[in-house]
Amino acid sequence: MEVVITALGPDNVGLADPIIHHVTGQGARIAEIQMYDHDEEHLFAMLCRIDIPATEFDRLSDAMRQIGEVTGLAIRVWSSELRAERPRLAVCCTYLEHTPRAILEAVRDGGINADVPVVISNRKKLAPMAAEFGAAFEMIGDGQGTSNDALMVELLDRYEVDYVVLARYMRILPPSTCWQFAGGRIINLHHGLLPGFPGFRPYHDAYGARMLTFGATCHFIIPELDAGNQTINQRTFAVSPGTKLDEVIRIGESENEPACLTEGVRRVIDREVYLHFHRVVARKAK
Amino acid sequence: MEVVITALGPDNVGLADPIIHHVTGQGARIAEIQMYDHDEEHLFAMLCRIDIPATEFDRLSDAMRQIGEVTGLAIRVWSSELRAERPRLAVCCTYLEHTPRAILEAVRDGGINADVPVVISNRKKLAPMAAEFGAAFEMIGDGQGTSNDALMVELLDRYEVDYVVLARYMRILPPSTCWQFAGGRIINLHHGLLPGFPGFRPYHDAYGARMLTFGATCHFIIPELDAGNQTINQRTFAVSPGTKLDEVIRIGESENEPACLTEGVRRVIDREVYLHFHRVVARKAK
Amino acid sequence: MEVVITALGPDNVGLADPIIHHVTGQGARIAEIQMYDHDEEHLFAMLCRIDIPATEFDRLSDAMRQIGEVTGLAIRVWSSELRAERPRLAVCCTYLEHTPRAILEAVRDGGINADVPVVISNRKKLAPMAAEFGAAFEMIGDGQGTSNDALMVELLDRYEVDYVVLARYMRILPPSTCWQFAGGRIINLHHGLLPGFPGFRPYHDAYGARMLTFGATCHFIIPELDAGNQTINQRTFAVSPGTKLDEVIRIGESENEPACLTEGVRRVIDREVYLHFHRVVARKAK
Amino acid sequence: MEVVITALGPDNVGLADPIIHHVTGQGARIAEIQMYDHDEEHLFAMLCRIDIPATEFDRLSDAMRQIGEVTGLAIRVWSSELRAERPRLAVCCTYLEHTPRAILEAVRDGGINADVPVVISNRKKLAPMAAEFGAAFEMIGDGQGTSNDALMVELLDRYEVDYVVLARYMRILPPSTCWQFAGGRIINLHHGLLPGFPGFRPYHDAYGARMLTFGATCHFIIPELDAGNQTINQRTFAVSPGTKLDEVIRIGESENEPACLTEGVRRVIDREVYLHFHRVVARKAK
Repeated sequence: MEVVITALGPDNVGLADPIIHHVTGQGARIAEIQMYDHDEEHLFAMLCRIDIPATEFDRLSDAMRQIGEVTGLAIRVWSSELRAERPRLAVCCTYLEHTPRAILEAVRDGGINADVPVVISNRKKLAPMAAEFGAAFEMIGDGQGTSNDALMVELLDRYEVDYVVLARYMRILPPSTCWQFAGGRIINLHHGLLPGFPGFRPYHDAYGARMLTFGATCHFIIPELDAGNQTINQRTFAVSPGTKLDEVIRIGESENEPACLTEGVRRVIDREVYLHFHRVVARKAK
Repeated sequence: MEVVITALGPDNVGLADPIIHHVTGQGARIAEIQMYDHDEEHLFAMLCRIDIPATEFDRLSDAMRQIGEVTGLAIRVWSSELRAERPRLAVCCTYLEHTPRAILEAVRDGGINADVPVVISNRKKLAPMAAEFGAAFEMIGDGQGTSNDALMVELLDRYEVDYVVLARYMRILPPSTCWQFAGGRIINLHHGLLPGFPGFRPYHDAYGARMLTFGATCHFIIPELDAGNQTINQRTFAVSPGTKLDEVIRIGESENEPACLTEGVRRVIDREVYLHFHRVVARKAK
Repeated sequence: MEVVITALGPDNVGLADPIIHHVTGQGARIAEIQMYDHDEEHLFAMLCRIDIPATEFDRLSDAMRQIGEVTGLAIRVWSSELRAERPRLAVCCTYLEHTPRAILEAVRDGGINADVPVVISNRKKLAPMAAEFGAAFEMIGDGQGTSNDALMVELLDRYEVDYVVLARYMRILPPSTCWQFAGGRIINLHHGLLPGFPGFRPYHDAYGARMLTFGATCHFIIPELDAGNQTINQRTFAVSPGTKLDEVIRIGESENEPACLTEGVRRVIDREVYLHFHRVVARKAK
Repeated sequence: MEVVITALGPDNVGLADPIIHHVTGQGARIAEIQMYDHDEEHLFAMLCRIDIPATEFDRLSDAMRQIGEVTGLAIRVWSSELRAERPRLAVCCTYLEHTPRAILEAVRDGGINADVPVVISNRKKLAPMAAEFGAAFEMIGDGQGTSNDALMVELLDRYEVDYVVLARYMRILPPSTCWQFAGGRIINLHHGLLPGFPGFRPYHDAYGARMLTFGATCHFIIPELDAGNQTINQRTFAVSPGTKLDEVIRIGESENEPACLTEGVRRVIDREVYLHFHRVVARKAK
């Protein structure tokens, strides 16, 4: 069983040692280790991917919990194989309804074989949508839309979420959240073609470049963001010369983005692709 | 009638004066003038777009011919309205057959309402294709594929070509050729999405950026190449993660590029779009 | 005498005709014409550079004034040779004092052979600086710093300004202003190396790219902004690894930018460089 | 003592396990682990930075040698503290003499406190320069200049080299070489300002962008090349408008590059900077 351990701490002294010591002591095979030390942000993190017999998972989890308690590190143990048949998604959104609704509908209609126990948002607007699909709605924003990132992490744990789907969620996740759910668990929909149009206004940027093709990108978010390498799905549409920007955005948001994200999430849930050493890899057919 | 006059000369002394003097003396309305002086390349050029009664076209052409003879300038007079019902295309190509063949087939089948009197190439390979469609084949390359650009210009005049279609023609047109056929007469197929992937290996570049969407761009070439603003048509296709580059290129060359170029040329021939002050503009429906 | 005529109008009908007709009728040699038509912005403009005997300048100005009155076009006639011995500068600024003060000091101390009749700003802060150097201070900002661009143009005319020096003036000039003073009359100080760092926060961007060299660029502003081609002067400084961003900005603003802009303005005023067909050219030594 | 262990293998099975197992078993503190798996290139690598008592260094080296022999991995153990007083440099070069000579002179004159036991080149041209400074000259190129990268690694080991200085060495090091000397041991001189001008012709590119400032960058090479983050030193020079490219290159190669590289190498040798989690960090003054 392939297991991902992530650890996060306030300094780099003793971050890796107890975890790696335990893991190697148990005879686990280490498949990948990545560490991160950004002194300026006081963020020290590690991802450790290992192979163990499935029967050992619970014991490993217990051991890591104890290490976490002793050391004060935030440690998580997770495997994509745990709930492979029906993983649990958190859908994160803000104001725009098209993409989160598309995910909820695909889950309801069977296109995506998963459950959505929770919809998380920094704005109240889409609470009725969550209710419509029987998902809990958790508000993490204050009045101005600023998100409580610590609360989001807490919610992801409480609802035992496997994958976080950012469906036009208009906040940037801090590196600490990305590291805690590292290993291919955070799926984002960017409303432009990456890597060419990375900013906040990709429709405007592509339109300003007088392009006639517009696109969306579904990708894993990894802690140090060099988006582009982690593409899961891209989808485009073309318009005729003279098409107004409003119409471009309308097509993009209502048709192209939902289809792009839904197919991307499906690829992950159906285990067609996964994140391997910072890159999306297609799983070989059995 | 909208008429485009282009002039090219070896220095900038007296380039514009005789032409503009004549044109304003005849009472023509000047819609656009662009001049270019690049001392380092000894290239001085002008584009002048004017409105005149259609009955004046021949007289203007004669006058410009005389000015050209006296001054030594290379002057051309052209109007998209001259042969609007059935313009004449030159198809320029090198080795790759998909895109030039697509144009020839679309012309034969009526998708593009034009004639192709000549296929121009810097390599012999596609001579049989020209013969198959009843077009003359003109070779402008030496043994190494280096093109005789002056001969190309001569051929475009001799065959009374309205539009030059670069269908994976693998040479860069020199600025002097671009200026002589300025005003929206040179249509290029670039095998990548502009402006993001402008180079010689756009499939490789997009693949290296780990994109899952690839595209082609049909655009007017203008003398000072800031490609991107002159897009006539763009077309894309998506692939699954894990698709090999060979397969990407195969789909792109055999399916996407031909469809992209054919539709782009059709838009120009059907007068849906035209070049206006360096930008592609959609003609308002009547 | 080389004369620049600029014209600006609300539509492109009849913009160029009367001016060009008059100019060619007088036998002037046309050295350069550029026209601009951006339907979306309702901005139609022309720059026309001609050679005439100096004795004809006043007559030309009168004629253009009359054409302007009749047609409603905004027409300007200017020659860099008019006040070549001691041109008149407008120094435009906002909050930062280092660069405008450097220009005023260089003028006072003789490093720049020019006069500064007016300091223009969208903020009140630097009014005392203008007073200190005996220049008028003209406020064009409302309370929020939004500039009255039409008033700026009026002031530039009223003070008979030859060159506009943007010394950390933190507003973008609209295209209409750029066109009215086209031909190499607007000199900007950008606080980053162009073309690599074009944005609003070039120190932050270069620092984020972990560079150890930072720079400033003095350049002509031309109507369609492809900054980089119009560089008059660039100046850099290096820092040691570990230098804080604050210190980088302090050195840049207090030492590097003033020196960069002062030398750039001097080059223009001393007629070492000029703008020729959108490019900066070094004037040949006599 | 901070020790860097690098390991390289043909597959990722069992790459990390024996090394990490040994290290943790000995009680070493793990400061950094980075792993790399690029299936397409069959390259699997690890960097492991640990803290041990200096007295343990030899024992660790022995253990790693044994693990290497048993597993077939290429393992290296190194510490910057080993020969901190006088580290050993390999100077790698091709045709251009300015930068390698500058290093050799600085070493001779005491500006750089190091020894240069060997000059390595893929061309014979600079053999006399090596002789002049009493360094061995090792040729790793075939007749066409293609380098024998395996031989280079062998030579670096044979001459017990601490730091590899690429002084206009015109070959790209393969990732396997970069990984084997990871951890801040390979210092490159790039003849342009990074990250803006990364290519093979940075002088031409900057000149083509009509810049008036040109620069050079001294940086660590890290295995996955996102050059720019690893800058050790940058140095620039400015030219007047109208300066020819030949003159720019002459100044750059003969004056700016040697000074840039010499100061960069000095900073590393004097332990002012080091590579820490992919970034250059200034060592705090004691």
